[in-house]
Amino acid sequence: MKRDFAIGEMIVSIVNIQDFGVKPDQERDATVAVFRAIESCRELERPTLLFPKGRYHFWPNKAVEKQYFIPNHDQDKNRRIAFPLFKMKGLTIDGQGSEFIFHGLTLPFVLDGCHDITVKNASIDWERPILSQGEVIEVGDGTFDVEIPKEYPYEVVDGNLIFLGEGWTEPCKGIIEMDSSTRSPAYGTGDYLNYGSYLKFRVEELAPGRIRYHGAGEQMPGIGNALIFQCGYRDCPGVFINNSTEIELASINMYHTIGMGVIAQRSENITLNAFNVMIKPGSGRLFSTAADATHFVYCRGTILLEGCLFENQMDDPLNVHGIYTPIAERVNENTIMIQLVHSQQRGALVASPGETVRFLNRKSLLPFELGVVKEVKMLNPEYSLVTFTQKLPESVGAEDLLENISWRADLTVRKCIARANRARGFLITTAGKVLVEQNVFSSAGAGIKISGDGNYWYESSAVQDIMIRNNTFQDCNYCYPQWGQAAIDIDPEIKPDPPHEDCYHANIRIEGNRFITFHPTLVNANSVDGIVFTGNTVERSERYPATVSSMSTLSFRNCKNIIIENNDFLEDQQQGTIGSETIDLRNNYASLMLDELWKEKGIAF
Amino acid sequence: MKRDFAIGEMIVSIVNIQDFGVKPDQERDATVAVFRAIESCRELERPTLLFPKGRYHFWPNKAVEKQYFIPNHDQDKNRRIAFPLFKMKGLTIDGQGSEFIFHGLTLPFVLDGCHDITVKNASIDWERPILSQGEVIEVGDGTFDVEIPKEYPYEVVDGNLIFLGEGWTEPCKGIIEMDSSTRSPAYGTGDYLNYGSYLKFRVEELAPGRIRYHGAGEQMPGIGNALIFQCGYRDCPGVFINNSTEIELASINMYHTIGMGVIAQRSENITLNAFNVMIKPGSGRLFSTAADATHFVYCRGTILLEGCLFENQMDDPLNVHGIYTPIAERVNENTIMIQLVHSQQRGALVASPGETVRFLNRKSLLPFELGVVKEVKMLNPEYSLVTFTQKLPESVGAEDLLENISWRADLTVRKCIARANRARGFLITTAGKVLVEQNVFSSAGAGIKISGDGNYWYESSAVQDIMIRNNTFQDCNYCYPQWGQAAIDIDPEIKPDPPHEDCYHANIRIEGNRFITFHPTLVNANSVDGIVFTGNTVERSERYPATVSSMSTLSFRNCKNIIIENNDFLEDQQQGTIGSETIDLRNNYASLMLDELWKEKGIAF
Repeated sequence: MKRDFAIGEMIVSIVNIQDFGVKPDQERDATVAVFRAIESCRELERPTLLFPKGRYHFWPNKAVEKQYFIPNHDQDKNRRIAFPLFKMKGLTIDGQGSEFIFHGLTLPFVLDGCHDITVKNASIDWERPILSQGEVIEVGDGTFDVEIPKEYPYEVVDGNLIFLGEGWTEPCKGIIEMDSSTRSPAYGTGDYLNYGSYLKFRVEELAPGRIRYHGAGEQMPGIGNALIFQCGYRDCPGVFINNSTEIELASINMYHTIGMGVIAQRSENITLNAFNVMIKPGSGRLFSTAADATHFVYCRGTILLEGCLFENQMDDPLNVHGIYTPIAERVNENTIMIQLVHSQQRGALVASPGETVRFLNRKSLLPFELGVVKEVKMLNPEYSLVTFTQKLPESVGAEDLLENISWRADLTVRKCIARANRARGFLITTAGKVLVEQNVFSSAGAGIKISGDGNYWYESSAVQDIMIRNNTFQDCNYCYPQWGQAAIDIDPEIKPDPPHEDCYHANIRIEGNRFITFHPTLVNANSVDGIVFTGNTVERSERYPATVSSMSTLSFRNCKNIIIENNDFLEDQQQGTIGSETIDLRNNYASLMLDELWKEKGIAF
Repeated sequence: MKRDFAIGEMIVSIVNIQDFGVKPDQERDATVAVFRAIESCRELERPTLLFPKGRYHFWPNKAVEKQYFIPNHDQDKNRRIAFPLFKMKGLTIDGQGSEFIFHGLTLPFVLDGCHDITVKNASIDWERPILSQGEVIEVGDGTFDVEIPKEYPYEVVDGNLIFLGEGWTEPCKGIIEMDSSTRSPAYGTGDYLNYGSYLKFRVEELAPGRIRYHGAGEQMPGIGNALIFQCGYRDCPGVFINNSTEIELASINMYHTIGMGVIAQRSENITLNAFNVMIKPGSGRLFSTAADATHFVYCRGTILLEGCLFENQMDDPLNVHGIYTPIAERVNENTIMIQLVHSQQRGALVASPGETVRFLNRKSLLPFELGVVKEVKMLNPEYSLVTFTQKLPESVGAEDLLENISWRADLTVRKCIARANRARGFLITTAGKVLVEQNVFSSAGAGIKISGDGNYWYESSAVQDIMIRNNTFQDCNYCYPQWGQAAIDIDPEIKPDPPHEDCYHANIRIEGNRFITFHPTLVNANSVDGIVFTGNTVERSERYPATVSSMSTLSFRNCKNIIIENNDFLEDQQQGTIGSETIDLRNNYASLMLDELWKEKGIAF
């Protein structure tokens, strides 16, 4: 049943899934066998659970169920989990190149309260994805016709397009148009057929597998393009990592999920190595996961992504952030009630005893006070009582925000490719040390977006130290003006009223990157103290028509300590704006000396 | 804030809710204050939480949320709890006559993992009940018209009657017709306007507060009668007692709940003293709780109900039972997978390590083997893996049932009144010692029902020792043939195939009761070994027309060891049937001597 090997000084225990009653390439449900195999690993020293190479199937009906409030997913759900890794230590799961095929609303992996876990060498896919796909075959006057292959069963009921899956029936909620030649969101499209814009349509079935959309506006999809039909909810991410440390996902191909690829929360030291969110080869699909490829909320230690491919997922490839939590009420001199407002943040544990938080003004997002947490009582997913070790100053009250600063991750992203997905590239709002190098971005929106928002998404935090170097930004912003103004878009949602001296973000260096672009604006930045743009080169791309934007090549507002040096711009992209000032980019620009800036900030990269 | 008193040797700590920011008769939400007061009790010795007499209000939005699979309620719900008593010890909550008014989907009390708790001297009601009420004002050809008072806001949408509440909008799902003179379900009605029978109706609004039902059949409601409109789900019982010991509810008037009055599970020694589920005085309502008054699943120790009134609730006043759980699969020689099939049993913990279960044939419900549980792993609310300390015999397999015999309560019900509710009186299927005495039953169905079922409700168990003495059965079965055949109806759902010698139930004594009745059948019994009917008297009631039934006054099938002695029957009710045999009740009847029977069973009452 298990074998022990000595590797150097280390005992390794091997558990083979075949000993629990499933074999590769069987059509039967492997869920209970996997559960029993995982449980048997608890008694072993550094166990490895091996899957002989082949296909394994997972259905939800006998899967472990647990209620999780998974951040940035749909809440109030009991999840059915195929690989429930609860409080495991030192475990490796090695698929040895196996395919894990999921059915219906099944969540592949949960790592909760785990330490030192590796999952490797497997692909993840669904027998029937929650997304469907069709091809535009005709465009008429206010109508367009779509052919839907048999693998995406559907029905038309009262003018609505309803897709049918394994244990689910979901109306189409929107469409993303994919260019069949670029295999990316079509130029200039974005969400024009998605969300609210989709509500106007009435669908008619012309023949089995052929439907007509009535009610189309001026902008029409291109004949031959693929339409991705969005359905369902963010129920089942590929991997949910919660309260865990030292986690590695390696050589994983994630072809689909009903949610994000990886979502991690309150976890420390996470490595993704050749973790690929990608189109399933030979599938004919132009989609991968139904939401972001990777997403990290209130993590710490180091998040390392290396050699990953992120393509064709229906939202951003990477987002690293914390949570700004509004204060609902001052209960007494050392207790406040906080409120998680965004529906996909409900249930998050915002702080724990001993952690340090800071209080911020809700408009400026600037901090004005610190506090150390003594006790947290979560009343419900929306409201918690937080008691502090000290009396709270009178200035802290309802309408302010709380941010936990004990959880802020360092981030390194290296040699990754982000392309052809809906929305943006990397969303980075972590106060840790960030290095983004040798990546290739080809995003429909901004390649890198650095925001921060205390009123709608409630995503913190102000960045403190970001190096973006030696990346290639190839044809970003091809759905401009949607999803970002520039290849690198720094746009915190702040309303300083009255205006003030302090900036929100700090210390962003953009060095030695290559911009291959048809879009005029490379960097758009608001409220950064210390922004450096040096040694970058720009090349003209003919892939898409040049877009029209009133913004300059570099556009900085409310920034200070700016250095622009030794770049190689295009002939017709030599104009920058710094506040109300127009500058000539053929000359170097420095609002202070580089050395002084970094000396002042005490930063050495 | 708190005061300590020495009562004898005992220190009592008093906590006053006023010290947490609420006063009696304030319209504001008391929920957070109650939570903080309860939490403050954790640090005290034998605390009493006092409410100065008055009205207190509870809304759900800041209430503690927890997911519970509450037995015999609707599942997969996160409950908002006004009094979350989690792992409390030695606590008394004294309302001092206060009214607790709940709003929307709020669950008043959860006692989970508690020991030695008393809740007393309070009433429980909702500002807007989940039930609504109207009056029949006209009956036409296939139509009837109803007047609905303003306190039950509604709208009519597409022929459907929708009621509007605080945070809820629910379609009417059925109607119970209440006789305005008897204030009970109308004679001969039952569920004729409820559940499936309701689906045929189309509703028209004639004027504000006046609606017409179209599609009525032959049976019409009586003009002047009240209609109770059933809405919503069993979301919020009044008191949920889980994994707790030594619990007392005393002098509680429960005017309404969105579910049962009290539901207890895996708890030990529960006393209900003057716990009244009743019509709110002066309210004009003819309903109380939306489901059973009290319900106990897999409890043990003693359940004592004394001096309680149960009236006008929309289901039975009392049900004491365990759970028959089907075996889905034999996993290996000492492990089985079990499956909770009924949707309202999902999530129940069926067994724990160290507990003894028995295996039963699914058709006969007769046990054939015992097992001692080593480990239980709940996969999800439906499936669990149960491992036993010993190898399971080959005879145990899929299609058999498992019953936990470590949880079986003794039950004493004394001086209670059960009347005017939908459905039956007391449902008793516990193998513990049962004493039912000095109660008054006036049930629409059977006054006492002793069933047992392994195929639909999955409610165990066979009874072993029941004494029913000195009760008054006044006008039971006025909705005959619905809800039971006789005042005392013993009808286990068994299909012995082939027929066999063993009986399902055992040792039921019916002694010294007074039957005041218009209905011909007093006792209907199937499969009882040891049934005694002695010293009972029968009086003719003129309250309702005599019902027509083909059954005898006493009707026993598949019973053995029967004694019928010294009863005083009505002149025209002198016929009994024992199997295919007709007996003359003017003579005593004994299939064996009384002493021998009890000696054989080893029972002394």
